[in-house]
Amino acid sequence: MTRIAVIGGTGNLGKAIARRLAKGGHEVTIGSRDAARAAACAEEIGAAGGGENAAVAAGQEVVIVAVPHASQAATLAEIRDLVGSAVVVDTTVPLVPPKVMRVQLPAEGSAAMQARAALNPDTRLVTAFHNVAAHRLDHADDRIECDVLCFSDDVEGRNLVVGLCGDMGLRGLSGGALANSAAAEAMTSILIYMNKTYGADGAGIRFTGLVSAPPIP
Amino acid sequence: MTRIAVIGGTGNLGKAIARRLAKGGHEVTIGSRDAARAAACAEEIGAAGGGENAAVAAGQEVVIVAVPHASQAATLAEIRDLVGSAVVVDTTVPLVPPKVMRVQLPAEGSAAMQARAALNPDTRLVTAFHNVAAHRLDHADDRIECDVLCFSDDVEGRNLVVGLCGDMGLRGLSGGALANSAAAEAMTSILIYMNKTYGADGAGIRFTGLVSAPPIP
Repeated sequence: MTRIAVIGGTGNLGKAIARRLAKGGHEVTIGSRDAARAAACAEEIGAAGGGENAAVAAGQEVVIVAVPHASQAATLAEIRDLVGSAVVVDTTVPLVPPKVMRVQLPAEGSAAMQARAALNPDTRLVTAFHNVAAHRLDHADDRIECDVLCFSDDVEGRNLVVGLCGDMGLRGLSGGALANSAAAEAMTSILIYMNKTYGADGAGIRFTGLVSAPPIP
Repeated sequence: MTRIAVIGGTGNLGKAIARRLAKGGHEVTIGSRDAARAAACAEEIGAAGGGENAAVAAGQEVVIVAVPHASQAATLAEIRDLVGSAVVVDTTVPLVPPKVMRVQLPAEGSAAMQARAALNPDTRLVTAFHNVAAHRLDHADDRIECDVLCFSDDVEGRNLVVGLCGDMGLRGLSGGALANSAAAEAMTSILIYMNKTYGADGAGIRFTGLVSAPPIP
């Protein structure tokens, strides 16, 4: 059992991640800008509790950040000095509304590199969960036909998140260095495009030909 | 039957593409810096003929460019004024040796946008074939477990290349606008990383959940 806070845990993606982690047996705390909403959400999904983002960020083993790109910098600044030695998992995809079907990576190369700059240099940072459709993930029993790429320069932290994916009924895969997050972040726009173009309700990607990867749940 | 030249057609990827297109019934001409090598390659794979890159670029319906990133600009400059109304298919992945497992997209955003700048403004440009392993593709009867993403701002040209993928025994998919090519280009570094990390001999990607996409061959 891992102590995990989900910052932005009342949003679509955060709530879905929190729901699956709680179901997987972890001690999950929901963070939100609104403590009352966080508490209500926690009760709904069977999490241990809820509170304001800054109030739940300390004392965790893992802090997952699931906020829109426009809120990423402010949210990370708010929790930067609170997370300590926790593994911070940033899920940000740098979509630029309204053209969300168009890849528009930031000048830094990726939201991951923006997160790296926003956190303290020694904070353990992983990025993941860019490609999985939140509304599919939120059905905690649905089989998700999408691998979850996990990126980090901290190998232990990355492996921890790959393991959490397994607990959530997902196949987590290492995608290598933190800078490689650009590939998954860009792929999200392709998946949104495919939803529209090929009539998908949450298109996903699977990697093929892997010999020693975790099994597909 | 489509008249197709493959520039850089004696290289690993170019040769494999040419082989499958020739087998698929197209009139394929091999281009190379060395006319004799091009002719020998054409004979080996059953192509219609071969010659120097600039000599084969004119009078085609499709011109596929399969050269290393370091040669992309010079090669496109050489054929720029020769391709006419042909659909130019650029396959360039902006790998930066020796760190080919690390995503390092160019400042322009992608090799696709670099190609766009290197060609005449009215040239029909598609990018494709970034993710498929050349040595697997070169076995013309092998089933390739990798979708081929095709990107363009020219919808007809993109659909043409999606169709050519089918003739090659591959599933081609539209990935949307030319700028979206960044997603597939970045993914190549992830696939190289996965080959090493998960013991794959040519890792690939498949899209899931698509309702109206071409069938997997």
